[in-house]
Amino acid sequence: MGEQHQRRREALAARIAAETDAVLITRLVNVRYLTGLASSNAALLVRADGTAVLATDSRYRGTAARVCPDLELVVERPTAETLTSRAAGDGVRRLGFEAHAVTVAKHAALAALDGDLELRPAGEPVEDLRRVKDEDELALLREACAITDRAFAALLPSLGPGRTEREVAVALDRHMVDLGAERPAFETIVASGPNGAIPHHRPGDRVLTRGDLVTFDFGALHGGYHADMTRTVALGEPAGWQRDLYDLVHRAQLAGVGAAVPGAETKDVDAAARTVIADAGHGEHFPHGLGHGVGLEIHEAPLMGYDKTGKLMDRVPITAEPGVYLDGRGGVRIEDTLVVRTSGPELLTETTKDLLVL
Amino acid sequence: MGEQHQRRREALAARIAAETDAVLITRLVNVRYLTGLASSNAALLVRADGTAVLATDSRYRGTAARVCPDLELVVERPTAETLTSRAAGDGVRRLGFEAHAVTVAKHAALAALDGDLELRPAGEPVEDLRRVKDEDELALLREACAITDRAFAALLPSLGPGRTEREVAVALDRHMVDLGAERPAFETIVASGPNGAIPHHRPGDRVLTRGDLVTFDFGALHGGYHADMTRTVALGEPAGWQRDLYDLVHRAQLAGVGAAVPGAETKDVDAAARTVIADAGHGEHFPHGLGHGVGLEIHEAPLMGYDKTGKLMDRVPITAEPGVYLDGRGGVRIEDTLVVRTSGPELLTETTKDLLVL
Repeated sequence: MGEQHQRRREALAARIAAETDAVLITRLVNVRYLTGLASSNAALLVRADGTAVLATDSRYRGTAARVCPDLELVVERPTAETLTSRAAGDGVRRLGFEAHAVTVAKHAALAALDGDLELRPAGEPVEDLRRVKDEDELALLREACAITDRAFAALLPSLGPGRTEREVAVALDRHMVDLGAERPAFETIVASGPNGAIPHHRPGDRVLTRGDLVTFDFGALHGGYHADMTRTVALGEPAGWQRDLYDLVHRAQLAGVGAAVPGAETKDVDAAARTVIADAGHGEHFPHGLGHGVGLEIHEAPLMGYDKTGKLMDRVPITAEPGVYLDGRGGVRIEDTLVVRTSGPELLTETTKDLLVL
Repeated sequence: MGEQHQRRREALAARIAAETDAVLITRLVNVRYLTGLASSNAALLVRADGTAVLATDSRYRGTAARVCPDLELVVERPTAETLTSRAAGDGVRRLGFEAHAVTVAKHAALAALDGDLELRPAGEPVEDLRRVKDEDELALLREACAITDRAFAALLPSLGPGRTEREVAVALDRHMVDLGAERPAFETIVASGPNGAIPHHRPGDRVLTRGDLVTFDFGALHGGYHADMTRTVALGEPAGWQRDLYDLVHRAQLAGVGAAVPGAETKDVDAAARTVIADAGHGEHFPHGLGHGVGLEIHEAPLMGYDKTGKLMDRVPITAEPGVYLDGRGGVRIEDTLVVRTSGPELLTETTKDLLVL
């Protein structure tokens, strides 16, 4: 299992070699990406030649030895300090660091360790690498999405008026875990009736009622990878405005997915969905971006919104999640996790997007 | 509900007034402590006169208006930047910031906003305040611990050989949620047989077996406050060494609790438990500190270990969790959440510490 991690470290080394002798990685999710080790205290020194040293504390000694036996391991609690001193001792003069992850206080502590060491902001080289997924990552994400689909299918037979949002959210979370999720990938949203107008509603004591639209936004975590899916269902035969709203968001979502091709500007993908909604007079009721990258984090690059820049590429997983929210009445959001591919978008969440009437 | 938050902001203002005109709070848990708002994107500007401005993005507009209606609210996505500009515009010259929370990149962005503004590291004034809890906080923590006790009691009748660690951990988590927890306060540990020798074991596929000692380390989250309890039980009549180990750790735990009085040095409290274990020849098998503060975070100040400094005070909740770990054989850990009080330690977790034989 260590081979893809070695490949990732070599890709990082190639990126940083021109500017620095080595780079200190302290963002834990980036350490995990480069080593396979999920730890609450770890750091990684990657040298320009692609060799690396991992530091963690004694709680993770055994796991590190099992997950990345090929890596030199140092077991010390102050991981960043230990690796910085190590780098200085090895003759590193220009040490890159993650300025978006290292705090001002930690930077001062590292800078004080060795007067000859120059700490250089290294940009976000690991996030840049993480944007395009390798096949190992796509396989994990595919399984996370499959669990998500199955959990929703398992929930549906028991879904109907009478239970609270919170009860339904707990049931959905339990289906995910029973079907193999490590845990829910984020706090599950169940937003019923008027609560559907709140994009990030926290499930509460409201009882699901006939006549509601109910929005579910949830996903499974599997192997560290985050699925993200939203479906809106109708409890009982929907009113005309509810069906119209659903059809509108559905069309917008398909337009967004269709525009998600390699080379597309993220803001153009957003616009493909947004235009459908704006043309129907609901532009102001779609107050968020179309979607975001997913992977080891639930929200990662690329972000897709009208004000975002960047291009999609082959093997970049994203979400497409347009929504329309009508204050006091309710809302609809429909979201898939998909992979941008040269051969066309690969949908990872496969639950039907036809309006389910329960 | 806003009154205690106003008191906290005034206490913060009193701390920072000598050095700065205002302080920018960006650690989210600290913003929550000072406002009541739990948000994934928020910042708070507290002026030396005790007035404050809260910034968050549109997702939290409604919640902020409900939770802290007394606070001036600014709805903008770049929360720290918005408040820094606001401070500069209001004539603030010396703006304190949390150097342990602000990244180097964020600091550079804030410093670039106004050339006349001096950004000053403010120490950790909110963490300092948070150490001693007010009665509102203690009430929430008490309830979190009560849920924890009840969940363990609910689990016990079904506990026995034949289920995997992971199955039992999931069942325990579900009891906590069913009994009112928002969620588990941290990833529940169930460590059976030889796995009990790993302090932070992740529950896996090992089947609980007659003759095991099984360690449960878990807690409920309630109102943002974290309970933390560990119990070790025996499956079937314990062997002599198992009972001896249990009795040893039990005595050490009681010694630690007994030493947790206002004015005590944290390292002396640690030593009170550690000496019991060392005197029995197991000093090297107790490789972690005695405990830690608990509150809005599962691990917070004060940390208690042989190498830690600091004094306990009235109304400081801590854990006391000695353990002995015998490689390849198993381990015992016993932990309570308690409050240091002038009147003597107040145990918040009340599950029996007599060895349960199941």
